[in-house]
Amino acid sequence: MPFIRESIITTLREDGSAHIVPMGVHETAKGLMLAPFKPSTTLENLQRNETATINYTDDVRIYAGGLTNRHDWPTVATEHIKGVRLLNSLAHTEVEVYLQEDDEVRPRFYCKIVHEEMHKPFHGYNRAQSAVIELAILVSRLHMLPAEKIDAEIEYLRIGMEKTAGDREQEAWDWLMEKVAAFRNNNNEKQA
Amino acid sequence: MPFIRESIITTLREDGSAHIVPMGVHETAKGLMLAPFKPSTTLENLQRNETATINYTDDVRIYAGGLTNRHDWPTVATEHIKGVRLLNSLAHTEVEVYLQEDDEVRPRFYCKIVHEEMHKPFHGYNRAQSAVIELAILVSRLHMLPAEKIDAEIEYLRIGMEKTAGDREQEAWDWLMEKVAAFRNNNNEKQA
Repeated sequence: MPFIRESIITTLREDGSAHIVPMGVHETAKGLMLAPFKPSTTLENLQRNETATINYTDDVRIYAGGLTNRHDWPTVATEHIKGVRLLNSLAHTEVEVYLQEDDEVRPRFYCKIVHEEMHKPFHGYNRAQSAVIELAILVSRLHMLPAEKIDAEIEYLRIGMEKTAGDREQEAWDWLMEKVAAFRNNNNEKQA
Repeated sequence: MPFIRESIITTLREDGSAHIVPMGVHETAKGLMLAPFKPSTTLENLQRNETATINYTDDVRIYAGGLTNRHDWPTVATEHIKGVRLLNSLAHTEVEVYLQEDDEVRPRFYCKIVHEEMHKPFHGYNRAQSAVIELAILVSRLHMLPAEKIDAEIEYLRIGMEKTAGDREQEAWDWLMEKVAAFRNNNNEKQA
């Protein structure tokens, strides 16, 4: 099984602005592998620049923001590749693509690690943060999953959420739950 | 809501040896709060030494080990308090107790942060690690929860587990699942 790091990928658009998205990154024997969907801005940016930054943050609002149209987070230029990194992260990895494999759904970009840096200490696991990550994954699949399954999983996630969340986790959770509600209102209107 | 860090607490026993347990640590305005159960070795150690180390590791085997009788992990002495820290962690915090509040179930130890140090970069969330942490919490409550609820939650956790685990996560998961099986065998024998 490949080990997957749920992280925030920053790449540069053609106009030099930052593109910020949550993405799972695969660990490989030689480095890391990114598999953005076709079509996507991250895919275009990787093809053009052949560089990316993998950002590791415990601010789960940046993950929830990626699914709720909140993409504007502060960044600074990276020093070892052409790119940017999140200003507020615990650590980041700068990578360069050494091999591209095309695919109809998810082309693969095999990357070597150019530089890695720590910024702040990891403070342990937090069940509310994990719940937000799981809810974000559910929200990205709302159109594919039955409503009852989504409800059951949300009820389960809510337990750890309510016991261990801070303000950032609560805000991220609320953004995602608003998206669930909007999706359902929209579906109900279509059925009415 | 208090933000809770799921972490590994190391304290010193009377003979100077290390006591290593997973525990949720509460963030407070002035520092951190620990609430070990009565009776427990961590409680005794905190009362006697008034120091503890909060270790943040992404090796989930240390969490699973705390519930499956695998307590022997390498430690080194701390530099700012009388204590030890895990040798392999991403970061750690050394604390001193400034206030104790007795309680019949979980006495509270309010702590100030004496020192904090980073050792390795956090590499992002991992759904398998979160699944192991959640399974560990389930395993600690086997005697309190209905078997069907446990089965349903395990099936849910298994999804993220199978998609994103590395070797350490698989080993930790297997230890915990052995404990679930042993608990049930034991219950069946009692009923037979």
